Amino acid sequence: MPDFSIGVDLGGTNLRIAAVSSDGKLLEKVTLGTKLALGRDHVIGEMCDAIQNLSGKYKATGNFLGAGIGLPGLIDLQAGMMRKAANLPGWENYPARAEIERRLGFPKNGARVVLENDARVAALGEHWLGAARGVENMAVLTLGTGIGGGIVLGGRIWHGMNGMAGEFGHVTLEPDGYLCGCGNRGCSEQYASASALLRMAREAIASGQAPALAQAALSDPEFGAKSIYDLAIHGDEPARHIFRSFGSYLGLLLADLVNVLNLEMYVVGGGASSAWDAFAPGMFEKLRQCSIVYGATALTDPLKSSSSGKKGSPSAESQSAFERQTVITRAVLGSDAGLYGAARVSMLSG
Amino acid sequence: MPDFSIGVDLGGTNLRIAAVSSDGKLLEKVTLGTKLALGRDHVIGEMCDAIQNLSGKYKATGNFLGAGIGLPGLIDLQAGMMRKAANLPGWENYPARAEIERRLGFPKNGARVVLENDARVAALGEHWLGAARGVENMAVLTLGTGIGGGIVLGGRIWHGMNGMAGEFGHVTLEPDGYLCGCGNRGCSEQYASASALLRMAREAIASGQAPALAQAALSDPEFGAKSIYDLAIHGDEPARHIFRSFGSYLGLLLADLVNVLNLEMYVVGGGASSAWDAFAPGMFEKLRQCSIVYGATALTDPLKSSSSGKKGSPSAESQSAFERQTVITRAVLGSDAGLYGAARVSMLSG
Repeated sequence: MPDFSIGVDLGGTNLRIAAVSSDGKLLEKVTLGTKLALGRDHVIGEMCDAIQNLSGKYKATGNFLGAGIGLPGLIDLQAGMMRKAANLPGWENYPARAEIERRLGFPKNGARVVLENDARVAALGEHWLGAARGVENMAVLTLGTGIGGGIVLGGRIWHGMNGMAGEFGHVTLEPDGYLCGCGNRGCSEQYASASALLRMAREAIASGQAPALAQAALSDPEFGAKSIYDLAIHGDEPARHIFRSFGSYLGLLLADLVNVLNLEMYVVGGGASSAWDAFAPGMFEKLRQCSIVYGATALTDPLKSSSSGKKGSPSAESQSAFERQTVITRAVLGSDAGLYGAARVSMLSG
Repeated sequence: MPDFSIGVDLGGTNLRIAAVSSDGKLLEKVTLGTKLALGRDHVIGEMCDAIQNLSGKYKATGNFLGAGIGLPGLIDLQAGMMRKAANLPGWENYPARAEIERRLGFPKNGARVVLENDARVAALGEHWLGAARGVENMAVLTLGTGIGGGIVLGGRIWHGMNGMAGEFGHVTLEPDGYLCGCGNRGCSEQYASASALLRMAREAIASGQAPALAQAALSDPEFGAKSIYDLAIHGDEPARHIFRSFGSYLGLLLADLVNVLNLEMYVVGGGASSAWDAFAPGMFEKLRQCSIVYGATALTDPLKSSSSGKKGSPSAESQSAFERQTVITRAVLGSDAGLYGAARVSMLSG
C-alpha cells in the first residue's frame, strides 16, 4: 500500500485539507470555511483536528509521511513561521509549525509539518500531477488577487536563499506605473491579476466609453473578472481591450521570465487564468515580440532539427536541445494544485 | 600534480588562451589579436595552434582535461556551434566544435572541446575563483557594449532548456523605450550598458546643457564611458546624472532578478562596472525601492536572528536562513573571469 501525506491549503476564505497517496491519488478532501473571526488558534485547532481525522482514517493504507501547509504570504522555512501574512491576522512571526507539530504530537515516526508559500506549492502540484507532469524545470504563475509564482527545478521547489524565489508578481513592468502594496510602482500584479482587470474595468467605466461594462457593474452585485470576460467573449470592445492589455502585460512578464530562466514550461493558473481565450492571443504576441529566448529557437528550421547532431560524444547537455520550444500553457488542477503540492512538499522534505 | 584545462576567450578584438590547473592556478596566458579579416578558419587555426602549444607544454604537470571556448553569441551547446554570432563573421551555424576537435585530434584521453557563451563562462569564473568563491547560487551581469548574464546554481552554469538562461540584457525595463538589436523595445542593455552611457552623453550634449561633456567629446578622440566617469567623479552634474540614471536602471534590473531568482549573490562585472563608485548609490537605492525580496529580510530584526530558531528538527532548508541578506558586489577577475570560466567548463563537462 502506498504511503500518504496531508496537504493543507489555508486561504482567507477556505481551509481545505486532503489526504494524498505518494503515488498521487486523492484519498479524501475536506473543505471548511476559514473562521478568521474566531482567531488563529481556532483555525489551527480545526486544521489539526482534520489532519488527525484523515491521518487516522488512512493509516491502514500506508505510512503517514507528514503534512504540508500552503499559506498566503512570506514564509520563513527554517523557523516554520510566516513573516508577512496580510490576510491571516495573528500569523505573522508566530511559530505556527512548532504549535501545529505540538498539537499533532509530531515528530511521530518521522512525520513532520512543513509550511510553504501557497503559490510555491501550487507550482509543485502542477509539476507533480498537472500540466507539467514529466517536465524537469518549470514555473507557475498564479493569477489571483495578486500574482503568485513558483519555480520547480528537478522536481523540487526552487526556494532561493530565503525561500522567496518566484516573486513574479513584483517584477516591474511599468517603471512609473501604479503603486503596489509592496511599495514599488508598476509591479506585474498591478497589470495582470484579477484586481488589475477590475481596475481597468473601473477606468473604462469612468471614461464613459464602456456602456456594457457600466451596465453590468450596476446590475450585477457580483461584478468581477468573470463578468468582464463574458462581455469580452461576446464581442464588447472595451472588455476585449481590457483583456488585450492584460494579455500584453502577462506576455511581457513571461518574456522576462523566459529570458532569465529559460525553463521548459510556464504554467498560467489562478482564477484569472480561466479567461485564457480572451487574453492568450495578446499574451503570445507580446511574448514573441519581447523575448529573445522565446524567439531564438525559431532561427533554426524545425525541419532540420535532426541536424543539431550527435556528432560529438554525449554531454551533460544532451537532453537540452537548442531547438526545443518553450511551452506556455494553462494550469489543469485548478485550486487543487495547492493541495496536491502541499501534500507533495511533506513527501519531499524527509 | 594537478590536471589542467585550456580556457579560450574569443572576442571581436582579442583571442586569449590560458592554461589553468584544476586547483585554479593560472599556468600561462597568451593574448593574440583576433584577425577577423583573415577569416574564421585562420582564427580557428591560431586558436588550435595555441591550444596545442600550451597543452604540450604543461602535459608533464598533469592530465590535459580539454578546452572550453567562450564565444559572444547564442550557442547551441549540443550541436557545438553558434546560432547567432553578430561579431564573428562565418561562425553562425558552422560546426566549430567538430572542426576544432578534428584539428586537435580530439577526443584524446577523454579531452573534449566545449563551446559556451562568454557571459556564462565569466559567471562561472567569478564563482570559481572570483567574487563568489564558496557561494552556492549566484549570477553575474557583464556590463559591456551590451549586458551579458550568467547564472550559476550549485557550482555549475544553469543553462536552462536551450542554453540561453541568463539573457539579462533583454529584460524589458521600459515598455516603450529604445529599440534594441533583438527587436524588442526598452531592453536593459539599452539603459545600463557602456553603449547606454554613450547614448545618454550624446543626448546630454545635444540638449546644450552639458558643456563639460561636450568639451570632452570634442577634445578626446577616445571619448567613452571612462571619460563620462572621470567627469562624474569630479562633480560634473550632467555626468553624475547619467550615472544616477544608469544605476537606477541597473537597480531595477537587479530588483527583477532578485525577486525572481532569490540568489545569494549578484556580481556586476564588465568594463562599465569600473564606474561602480559613480552608479552604485543609485543602483542600491532603486533596488531597495523595487525589490520585495531584497527588502523583506529587513522586516525581521537582525538582532533577533537567533529567534529564527532551531525548534523544529533540521530540514533541507537549514542552510538557507530567512534573515540572510542578498549580496550585490563587483566582479574581481576583470576580463580573466571568462578565461578561468572557460577552462572550468571543460573540467566540469566530463
